[in-house]
Amino acid sequence: MAAHAAALAGVPPQASAPGGDDVVDLTQTHPFYGDAQQAGISTEPQRHSMFMTFDLTTAKVGDLQVLLALWSSAIAQMMQGATIGQVEPKQPSAVGFDTGEALNLGPASLTVTIGLGPKVFSDIYGLSHQMPPLLRELKQLPSDQLDPALTGGDLSVQACADDPQVAYHAVRDLARIAKSTGSAQTRWTVMGFGRASAGRGQSTPRNLLGFKDGTRNLKEDAEFEQFVWVKDGPAWQRYGSYQVVRKIQMHIENWDTDRASDQNNVFGRHKVSGAPLTGTKEFDTPDFKKVDATGNPVILPTAHIALAAFENNKGIRILRRSYNYTDGLNQFGQLDAGLFFMSYQNDPAHFEMLQTKLGASDALNEYIAHIGSGIFFAPPAPKEGNYIAQEMFS
Amino acid sequence: MAAHAAALAGVPPQASAPGGDDVVDLTQTHPFYGDAQQAGISTEPQRHSMFMTFDLTTAKVGDLQVLLALWSSAIAQMMQGATIGQVEPKQPSAVGFDTGEALNLGPASLTVTIGLGPKVFSDIYGLSHQMPPLLRELKQLPSDQLDPALTGGDLSVQACADDPQVAYHAVRDLARIAKSTGSAQTRWTVMGFGRASAGRGQSTPRNLLGFKDGTRNLKEDAEFEQFVWVKDGPAWQRYGSYQVVRKIQMHIENWDTDRASDQNNVFGRHKVSGAPLTGTKEFDTPDFKKVDATGNPVILPTAHIALAAFENNKGIRILRRSYNYTDGLNQFGQLDAGLFFMSYQNDPAHFEMLQTKLGASDALNEYIAHIGSGIFFAPPAPKEGNYIAQEMFS
Repeated sequence: MAAHAAALAGVPPQASAPGGDDVVDLTQTHPFYGDAQQAGISTEPQRHSMFMTFDLTTAKVGDLQVLLALWSSAIAQMMQGATIGQVEPKQPSAVGFDTGEALNLGPASLTVTIGLGPKVFSDIYGLSHQMPPLLRELKQLPSDQLDPALTGGDLSVQACADDPQVAYHAVRDLARIAKSTGSAQTRWTVMGFGRASAGRGQSTPRNLLGFKDGTRNLKEDAEFEQFVWVKDGPAWQRYGSYQVVRKIQMHIENWDTDRASDQNNVFGRHKVSGAPLTGTKEFDTPDFKKVDATGNPVILPTAHIALAAFENNKGIRILRRSYNYTDGLNQFGQLDAGLFFMSYQNDPAHFEMLQTKLGASDALNEYIAHIGSGIFFAPPAPKEGNYIAQEMFS
Repeated sequence: MAAHAAALAGVPPQASAPGGDDVVDLTQTHPFYGDAQQAGISTEPQRHSMFMTFDLTTAKVGDLQVLLALWSSAIAQMMQGATIGQVEPKQPSAVGFDTGEALNLGPASLTVTIGLGPKVFSDIYGLSHQMPPLLRELKQLPSDQLDPALTGGDLSVQACADDPQVAYHAVRDLARIAKSTGSAQTRWTVMGFGRASAGRGQSTPRNLLGFKDGTRNLKEDAEFEQFVWVKDGPAWQRYGSYQVVRKIQMHIENWDTDRASDQNNVFGRHKVSGAPLTGTKEFDTPDFKKVDATGNPVILPTAHIALAAFENNKGIRILRRSYNYTDGLNQFGQLDAGLFFMSYQNDPAHFEMLQTKLGASDALNEYIAHIGSGIFFAPPAPKEGNYIAQEMFS
């Protein structure tokens, strides 16, 4: 047996080539208040995420205001690495205390981004006149296998941080505050590990299919201005964005039995380098018209990058801000994992257009299933001392 | 509403006081091969863990040898930050390739620790004469609420790393190798985030009840020699250790409604400082005999630290190496989270003795449930070029 083991050890390993992400500084902070967008959208993706949606359980608009005010105050403090209030209060307090598990951990670049679902703008709360013009439920999309228990919600909370305990603590305490008000209850949640999208200056990370994800993601300010931020409508909507989330299960055990050459064709890229099949380097522009010696396209028309490319979608681009997730093992003992896809765009129809094509034709569909979904409007950041979406109520 | 938000923001936050764990260097490695214990036991706990158990599905001892040899070879390479083999092999390969998602991430202090369950030493494999003398199923313990689906296993894999994707990748590829051999299948798994035990030189982290966990954990070599390592029996068992794992669900929403003073009494410590109720600093020695002005003990006899303290348990100590976990939301919409407890000791009866007391009397039992369990013998590290437990077969 020693010979067997030695022989295997002799397979030349692909040495890893660590990029610029080798040192993580957990003392960094982002501001919550501002004059434009909320943090957590154009912010360079942190290493961990905790996402949760809530159903409103109150019919009073004032309750919604109080909840958003309490959340805003708590988020502002947590993003600075402070606790929400005392960890050992002398008197019991329903709201102004902190569960304590992030104490001593540092801010870890925490951002908490709040989204408003369609029901917020229903007649119940007298806010129908404030409805962001493009907010609505997503239409039924090809290949949808949505589980109602992983779909929808009236409010969304996206916490991202370079320490998962900091992200978990933030959502846990916001859920606790929501419960204490009686105004909202938890609906569904996903914890993400390992960012699967790159921001400006970041190396491109890999999803659990082993491929680099987000090579052509939006990174430049001009791209955010064009594709992400809402620029018109009432002031409280400007520099908001439409948030679409999808829990995408990946059948990674099946994927792992597929040959690398097939996997490359499914994506249209080389697995190791991330280069398009028509190029040699990750950031080479894919040539969707290139054919091989037999006249066949080098990047198949059903390849993931061919269907998703802006060149083939009227120039449309969306910001992806995804994370890998695992749910452990499924009932068959197979690894249950996937991608928690989050995107931001100034029109949810842009996501729908892309997913309509991908859901119908993507070679990847054999290996993935969209099992959860949500759509929200992420309003701009509150001004100092205000709470999120405060102007919406006036 | 602005006034309300401003008032809350005015609650003086408990400023976080980051310790020495603010910068994470992902280029660090630990050796897999060695002359004594496996890595991942006395190694300072990394920030993330992925634990999985497997059931053996073969009756041939040679298959078990091959599996342990393949795993050993793969682990040795991954712990150096290398892939197991090629990520884009020209020819399909069942074993000597890598799924790729940890490429470019760096080794991140990865350790993978293998444990052998009781069935390994059954007559099936002709290994009953090699049975570690103290290995057996744990006895039924007070308050056990074990779910068979989260209990047991013939092999355990504990991967710990400072990057969760590195830990996940390791277990995923070992599961893939196991499946390809047909010799073992997955049984249960827990992903941990945020170490909940301290090693030498590390600050004490917090569990999801917000309390520092592991203040009195083993840290010194002499303590490991006395309480952790097996020192007798055949050579292949020396510097092995008995691994006990428990998935402990915490009812954190109930906990959060309890007053801090009650919580402090449940643990016998102050939540913020971690000091025993009889002291003022975290590492002050608890005085279990101290009484207050009315003659009542300051640390209640049912407090967690009173029941667990070595002073009250014939001097017995065990090494804890736990992680926080979350399973999202339960069917009632409550936060489903807890502690993935792992301990190492040179006699599993030591764990049983402590848990017998804790399970019967611990004030904490109102808030926790032991739902998963496993026991394994973690053999020593293999010598260079050997595979784990190789000498056991000779």
